[in-house]
Amino acid sequence: MHYQLYYWTGIQGRGEFIRLALEDAGASYTDMAREHGDEVMTPFLEGSKEGLQPFAPPFLVSGRQVIAQVAAILDHLGPELQLVPEAASRRVQALQLQLTIADLVAEVHDTHHPIAGSKYYEDQKDAAKARAASMRAERMPKFLGWFEQVLEANGGLHPLREHSYVDLSLFQLVSGLTYMFPRRMQALRGELPLLHALHDRVLRRPNVAAYLASERRLAFNTNGIFRYYPELDGDA
Amino acid sequence: MHYQLYYWTGIQGRGEFIRLALEDAGASYTDMAREHGDEVMTPFLEGSKEGLQPFAPPFLVSGRQVIAQVAAILDHLGPELQLVPEAASRRVQALQLQLTIADLVAEVHDTHHPIAGSKYYEDQKDAAKARAASMRAERMPKFLGWFEQVLEANGGLHPLREHSYVDLSLFQLVSGLTYMFPRRMQALRGELPLLHALHDRVLRRPNVAAYLASERRLAFNTNGIFRYYPELDGDA
Repeated sequence: MHYQLYYWTGIQGRGEFIRLALEDAGASYTDMAREHGDEVMTPFLEGSKEGLQPFAPPFLVSGRQVIAQVAAILDHLGPELQLVPEAASRRVQALQLQLTIADLVAEVHDTHHPIAGSKYYEDQKDAAKARAASMRAERMPKFLGWFEQVLEANGGLHPLREHSYVDLSLFQLVSGLTYMFPRRMQALRGELPLLHALHDRVLRRPNVAAYLASERRLAFNTNGIFRYYPELDGDA
Repeated sequence: MHYQLYYWTGIQGRGEFIRLALEDAGASYTDMAREHGDEVMTPFLEGSKEGLQPFAPPFLVSGRQVIAQVAAILDHLGPELQLVPEAASRRVQALQLQLTIADLVAEVHDTHHPIAGSKYYEDQKDAAKARAASMRAERMPKFLGWFEQVLEANGGLHPLREHSYVDLSLFQLVSGLTYMFPRRMQALRGELPLLHALHDRVLRRPNVAAYLASERRLAFNTNGIFRYYPELDGDA
């Protein structure tokens, strides 16, 4: 199977959770917008292509299927790429974990855009600072602490006791948060040893390491979901 | 199979998407916190029960499985309750639609709590008004217009061309938004004929109608996700 991934050029964004799964598994895929421009997504988003119309990128074309929503794409890819346990009862656990990652990612986005995604950050900076205080003090410890507990309860190495797409997404989550909140993540580091060890192990997986060193991996930047604005990272 | 549903008492909240599926299918279930108090959820949330620790309610106990996250619970229940098409390619479409409903529900929550879930509405009212303007002008037409388009592209009656848990969740979404934004929903009504017709058909399904007339259905209120604050509904 050759996959076509559609996602905005220029940012890692939500597309990166899919890229990491495809890259780790050594799957054959084309990153369509990066090859041909963002406009190749338009007919899909306007509903003039076969298949269920995506609400937004990323979406994946897999044979005749068009699948949008990160967690749905990973739920589809998991068995094909051997990136999820086989039993249905474990596969739904992967989905549950991924959806909790997605919830935190949505909150990360709204930290720099608490009022409107359509407005500039500069025009909602005061609200962003207030929201970031809650993110640092309450949401990051709650979410990350939960992932740490799940790791601890399941042998310490993988939340699902074996390698899965969830490990790859947790790697991306920790990487993104470390870019966006370097001081806060440093302060929390001692409470999250298993999560950081997981991040470091994923970083050394051969296909992941090769991908990260390639031109296919974009750098984090202040157009993506994880954005480094020093004023949102709190006082030193 | 007898299911145990765990969700906060006193609000419809995210638990309602699960209740509607269980009720429509005539499933046997116990609404545990309403029967025994919110404290029955504590051991699960603290991780002292068997199974994957839920991050937050709602969660469902189904045999030996503990499943959290609305879309994961519905993905699990779909086949058991015959509320999703059988083919894997259609089941992932149901998941994709449900995740887009979940995205809008999260944005609805953050409309009245744009700064912090832990702070009172009254302490973030100005930011809520600004965010509500974007919700009314941009997000509601975009999301609801997309559901309308999906209905139109698939025969007009069901987004998946047959009854599914997605229909029930769309019913809840339209109901909640109509409670929260009565003026705005009235203004958009003419652009969303298929979505409103779907809502009205679900309302008349015998098990749904019986549920809505029962004491099991809580009224919408200003503690839940959909909250009616007139100042967020814009000018008359």
